[in-house]
Amino acid sequence: MSKVFNFSAGPSMLPEPALQAAAKAAIDYNGCGMSLMTMSHRSKPIVAMFAETEALLREALDIPQNFKVLFLQGGASLQFCMVPMNLLPQDGCADYTITGVWAKKAAKEAKLFGKVNEACSSAEATFSYIPKELKQDPKATYLHVTSNNTIYGTEWKSFPKPANPNGYLVVDMSSDILSRKFDWTNMGLVYAGAQKNMGPAGVTIAIVRDDILGKVERVIPTMLSYATHIEGESMFNTPPVFSVYVVNETLKWVKSVGGVDALHKINERKAAKLYKAIDDSSFFKNPVAVEDRSPMNVTFVPTAEGHDEQFIDFCKARGLVQLKGHRSVGGFRASIYNAMPEEGVDALIEAMKDFEKQL
Amino acid sequence: MSKVFNFSAGPSMLPEPALQAAAKAAIDYNGCGMSLMTMSHRSKPIVAMFAETEALLREALDIPQNFKVLFLQGGASLQFCMVPMNLLPQDGCADYTITGVWAKKAAKEAKLFGKVNEACSSAEATFSYIPKELKQDPKATYLHVTSNNTIYGTEWKSFPKPANPNGYLVVDMSSDILSRKFDWTNMGLVYAGAQKNMGPAGVTIAIVRDDILGKVERVIPTMLSYATHIEGESMFNTPPVFSVYVVNETLKWVKSVGGVDALHKINERKAAKLYKAIDDSSFFKNPVAVEDRSPMNVTFVPTAEGHDEQFIDFCKARGLVQLKGHRSVGGFRASIYNAMPEEGVDALIEAMKDFEKQL
Repeated sequence: MSKVFNFSAGPSMLPEPALQAAAKAAIDYNGCGMSLMTMSHRSKPIVAMFAETEALLREALDIPQNFKVLFLQGGASLQFCMVPMNLLPQDGCADYTITGVWAKKAAKEAKLFGKVNEACSSAEATFSYIPKELKQDPKATYLHVTSNNTIYGTEWKSFPKPANPNGYLVVDMSSDILSRKFDWTNMGLVYAGAQKNMGPAGVTIAIVRDDILGKVERVIPTMLSYATHIEGESMFNTPPVFSVYVVNETLKWVKSVGGVDALHKINERKAAKLYKAIDDSSFFKNPVAVEDRSPMNVTFVPTAEGHDEQFIDFCKARGLVQLKGHRSVGGFRASIYNAMPEEGVDALIEAMKDFEKQL
Repeated sequence: MSKVFNFSAGPSMLPEPALQAAAKAAIDYNGCGMSLMTMSHRSKPIVAMFAETEALLREALDIPQNFKVLFLQGGASLQFCMVPMNLLPQDGCADYTITGVWAKKAAKEAKLFGKVNEACSSAEATFSYIPKELKQDPKATYLHVTSNNTIYGTEWKSFPKPANPNGYLVVDMSSDILSRKFDWTNMGLVYAGAQKNMGPAGVTIAIVRDDILGKVERVIPTMLSYATHIEGESMFNTPPVFSVYVVNETLKWVKSVGGVDALHKINERKAAKLYKAIDDSSFFKNPVAVEDRSPMNVTFVPTAEGHDEQFIDFCKARGLVQLKGHRSVGGFRASIYNAMPEEGVDALIEAMKDFEKQL
């Protein structure tokens, strides 16, 4: 089959130059006669590649110097337990904003370690909006936010401010990191599984403010302590070298197209035209509050029943794949992360129009 | 540079067909028009690939049906805490055999969760042998063994029997899995980071007997519970798909060369000729008890001082790289895992002889 446009929510499309570089490195890394997958993580070229990847990420997101950048494993799901294990005091409290399945999972895990205050929830409306009012605990150590909700297609356009003046934000950015810049003022920790906007599955980025650690009494297993990985410079144990390299090449691509601000503009344009096509259609509709619509995951449902499979097949025949909505909301979902070219969105819009015409 | 022989202890050489397949899949997976790195882990081709990988591993190692096969992240280092967290009762005890740095790390982590009895140790002799006498706790839930000690070049030729009739073995096989078959009779759990004999860094295999779980009282975070991953069939969260694929292709190569028994014979032959060259030499010597010598990691030290860097450079000029011994033992180490061709060992032996001649 010729190249397709892949609207998968994650793992997702990656920039073509990053894939080409990965294929080359799988055989011979930079002409050193060895596959990247077979090289010691402590060898000079790999240590240099990690340092470069960190520098590229710092540049892409204007990461302040008092934050450490870590390359970890286990995805956001492991962060769900590492966050409270490292940060939530046994007799303390944390605020969680419940805006989707992943946010709920994060809160559930935190409850194993301390008191969790659900500062808001849009569960009653199938998470179709971002709550505007928060009831924070004024003593909460941190306020946890899921910046973009992959399943429901909502995004926090700006982050709420922690009510506790000594509190900080912990943000799961798995599905919109590198899609826009954001303010670091109230940030304590940002984490993201790479497999949506940043690289392949198997590497997780954590960006940790250096003064938030060491404040809980509990014993933390070595591998689950952020301090371990800070001290080991992400090489306490063998890191997922190949996956980090694909992140490196993805970040180089981000830079080559003008950086995160340039991608933000393109993302806004891609999303705007797709949402417009949905709004203009009499067959499709988007169930999300207009002001909270995600530029990354565009969800839409048919207004008439019985055409779901038909539309999926119609698109597939045109090389537009992975458009099925998550089983909890049904309908369709087009994930249009950084690496989805505008032509992919145009092709989808055309397919939607053509499908509607022939109904 | 042209292809080199890479003696790195891990990540290490992988079979050429697996690397070629990986390079192809990085661009287009089985002609489906998408890079493997961009495909949903829940799509049919990926679910099928995981099932095939499990079947290949079961076949390669004769894994009995009452064991579950899991593809995890975090390396052996994360297993060091998952093992006691899931298996060691708070008021119980586990036996650990202390045969090297990794065995020590495993024991250290277990001490966070319960009582640890050090059943033996060769620390007093820089771990240059495998202890023959064990002082097990007759009530120990499990007996932990590091089957091959990468840094020191020792291997358990057979595994000790747990003293507790209801006890079982937990074996870290990171550096010799797939190099030989072994008896499953007393096994409870086998785990291994892939990056030595099985695939790239970023995927960890755990093989768990189905009756050993659910016997501890403590609360286990979701991602750290083996039960989670058994129930989710290694897809509770997004697994490291690309790394698992390289394991798949490595297992296909294992099968193509005649399986683990055939590799075992080749490994024995490779190791025997290298140890003979060391023993025959008047410049190099091997510090390990003869009966415990590892067929995977061959350590050797110079008998005269001041030639270390010189020998490393001499080998490097011939395309024989990553021969430096671990900093804790010095000298040299040739890791000759499954994927190291016999020609690589022959080339090293020739280099040793030539180096000695010109001294």
